[in-house]
Amino acid sequence: MVNVSVGGAAFDVIVVGGGPGGAAAAGVLARGGKKVALVEEAGLGGTCLNHGCIPTKFFLAATAPLGALRDHQRHGIVSGELKVDFAALQKRKNRFVQGASAALGKALQVAGVTLIQGRGVCKGAGLVQCEGGTQATLRAADVILATGSRAAAFPGLEPDGAAVLDSTMLLSLERVPESLIIVGAGAIGMEFSDFFSALGVKVTLVEGMPQLVPAEDADIAEELRKIVQKSGRVCLTGQKVASVLTRGGQAELTLADGRVLTAEKALIAVGRKANTQALEHAGCALDKRGFVVTNAFLEAAPHCHAIGDVNGLALLAHAAEHQGEWAARRILGLEKGEYSSGPVPSCIFGHVEIMRVGRTAKELLASGSRPGVAVSPMSLNPIAQAHGSSTGFVKAVRQGDVLVGMAAIGHNVSHLVTAAQLLVLHGHTPETLRRFMFAHPTLDESLKNVLTAPETIAVL
Amino acid sequence: MVNVSVGGAAFDVIVVGGGPGGAAAAGVLARGGKKVALVEEAGLGGTCLNHGCIPTKFFLAATAPLGALRDHQRHGIVSGELKVDFAALQKRKNRFVQGASAALGKALQVAGVTLIQGRGVCKGAGLVQCEGGTQATLRAADVILATGSRAAAFPGLEPDGAAVLDSTMLLSLERVPESLIIVGAGAIGMEFSDFFSALGVKVTLVEGMPQLVPAEDADIAEELRKIVQKSGRVCLTGQKVASVLTRGGQAELTLADGRVLTAEKALIAVGRKANTQALEHAGCALDKRGFVVTNAFLEAAPHCHAIGDVNGLALLAHAAEHQGEWAARRILGLEKGEYSSGPVPSCIFGHVEIMRVGRTAKELLASGSRPGVAVSPMSLNPIAQAHGSSTGFVKAVRQGDVLVGMAAIGHNVSHLVTAAQLLVLHGHTPETLRRFMFAHPTLDESLKNVLTAPETIAVL
Repeated sequence: MVNVSVGGAAFDVIVVGGGPGGAAAAGVLARGGKKVALVEEAGLGGTCLNHGCIPTKFFLAATAPLGALRDHQRHGIVSGELKVDFAALQKRKNRFVQGASAALGKALQVAGVTLIQGRGVCKGAGLVQCEGGTQATLRAADVILATGSRAAAFPGLEPDGAAVLDSTMLLSLERVPESLIIVGAGAIGMEFSDFFSALGVKVTLVEGMPQLVPAEDADIAEELRKIVQKSGRVCLTGQKVASVLTRGGQAELTLADGRVLTAEKALIAVGRKANTQALEHAGCALDKRGFVVTNAFLEAAPHCHAIGDVNGLALLAHAAEHQGEWAARRILGLEKGEYSSGPVPSCIFGHVEIMRVGRTAKELLASGSRPGVAVSPMSLNPIAQAHGSSTGFVKAVRQGDVLVGMAAIGHNVSHLVTAAQLLVLHGHTPETLRRFMFAHPTLDESLKNVLTAPETIAVL
Repeated sequence: MVNVSVGGAAFDVIVVGGGPGGAAAAGVLARGGKKVALVEEAGLGGTCLNHGCIPTKFFLAATAPLGALRDHQRHGIVSGELKVDFAALQKRKNRFVQGASAALGKALQVAGVTLIQGRGVCKGAGLVQCEGGTQATLRAADVILATGSRAAAFPGLEPDGAAVLDSTMLLSLERVPESLIIVGAGAIGMEFSDFFSALGVKVTLVEGMPQLVPAEDADIAEELRKIVQKSGRVCLTGQKVASVLTRGGQAELTLADGRVLTAEKALIAVGRKANTQALEHAGCALDKRGFVVTNAFLEAAPHCHAIGDVNGLALLAHAAEHQGEWAARRILGLEKGEYSSGPVPSCIFGHVEIMRVGRTAKELLASGSRPGVAVSPMSLNPIAQAHGSSTGFVKAVRQGDVLVGMAAIGHNVSHLVTAAQLLVLHGHTPETLRRFMFAHPTLDESLKNVLTAPETIAVL
């Protein structure tokens, strides 16, 4: 990032934070003719590019051939041995991240955005003080807060950088550990468990909730548990953790019931908290979880939008980007109504994946409605069979006649997410499905199968 | 298939041919209350299940880990050696095909379809003679012709079952040949070239047209040529073949210019021709290519629909299925208007894949219109980068403002086909794309990239 002399400069918009949300907003605004400053303390691209979605995908892509080999080995079709050079993987991952971050900066500059390296601290309406890097006071008519989130840590579970790590530290390991305890079986914990388990690491998952992937429906979580246990990972669900600390160079975890687990490393992945340290004088309120409260227009205060993780609406890079573009268009006068996300997609990647779009049966049941669900096993799909990996299923969730959600668990099901998103968006039914052909033979046909499968009423 | 005594029986509908089209039609009709006979000479599921789409996908899935290893090896990230047990692969492929064919028969019987093993020969309106297997004369108010197609052979290029093979024979090999000449670089030729090349077979592709994959746009074919040549396959395009024959146990190919190529085996994959041998008295006409002529209602004659490959509209399993279901619904009185296929998707599978939906720029240029095209390279996609395979691109084709086609070439792009299909079906624009989020990071985002990329006017 280039340092720019901007003492006391006046902008149309100051964007605080250069992750997927902030960068998208800044780009749209600059291309729309606004004078925009983007203040970012660390790497452009935010958590997603530097310490999240992208580096973990490089990890998981490297172990993909190992998983494929295992599936074919089980049927006696492919044999051999594969080795991952972890140092080479780290190098390539780092090179990609640095290159992509630099390319993003270049693209923003070409669009006319003033990039300012430093920590943006809100000092009042339209007033942002840059600290740390560039020292400057910025003024603007509008501010967009896009400060993101960071790994949460509970008392007794603080990463110490020795044997107890957060996800950013784990992504920077120089050597593959022999054993790993993962506290928290959400998306982050599951993806790391998939990667390290594929490398032969002895992985133990510890989750406080009664199921793995607590955001997903129970049937998905149960299918995942079976697959994960079969792969040799130990799953401890419904287990409260009293403490995790480094003792004698090893990670030592004590469960609430007194049992003690040890491993070479432990990952703490118990959720995320909003980065609101610099927002004290931004004029916005925080909810009880510590996220910035926004109205239906993504405003946290007059002329102050809050987008992405910091508002807690959906802790997903693509949600941040969507909100960022929308807020930018609103400032440009191109959006008049309330913000609407449409169905929100999410994926957990790995050899066995989970995808979800829109509403879950769980969510709807909790809100008192009685959704209809249909399920179709991946084993009916010839492509899944050909790859020797046909566990899992696809699920459709309806409210009355309306398709409101889809989900799937299985090998490669992240590839179903956009088709599912479009099917939900357009409210397709068995009747409207007749208007088009699903290409054969594809994994995508599993979506057709579930949309024409018999439906039952969901129960908890 | 169960033999049923049906001498002189009267049905509501006789379906001649039990491939994807005929089976789909029979199922819909029987579930709709019709008395249906389905006459099939060979395996239920037709070419697709028994000798086409499905067995080739088992082949390609087995070499998928080898391709993934190669891509990661190039970056020094994964090392090792993999071996495919061809005999085990053949066994598993055959077991799956037999099981799926039996399951299809069972499902049709449960639906109430009378399955008749034999060759259905049309003897007049509503009159079908079964020969070969069950001897019977069947009468019905309606007939659906779904007799499919078979590999075409030109004079001098006839498969002899020794060293010169058609695709069905190649699928039944007991041993991997050392070298293979493939005549015809369409979908079938390209998929086999991908599989055998991955196994280390010396492959030579010979294509009469000036480009590989003649149905695709020239830029896609050119990208494919680069990738195929890099993989060590020899590509001879624009080369007429004078003859292919077995000499001294080897395949010997003579080009029109007199050059001679030899290999252990040769595959003849120069197209398909309609199975119309038993349709002489069906009352239908054939076009100059030998396909059954149908009207806008898929009728070949009064009370006689012709669906699938035999009508030559689209030689694709999913097109046959779509037509079969539609014709069945029409006979049930549930479809009143003309048949409309919607955008037709197609894929060529392998390590590097091609997908296409709707119209190509080539087609539109040939019909005198001036389509707008946009192209976005796969190298912009982080998932493609993470897998070490980022050659290729995605392409959008528009007529005026309307998205009428999408295509892509690259690793895993068959997974884009249904999302592309839905984007074309709903005529999405950069404006309507704002209504929803593409999940990040996914290969699917390459579709978003091309839909928001700058457009140029296509030229030949």
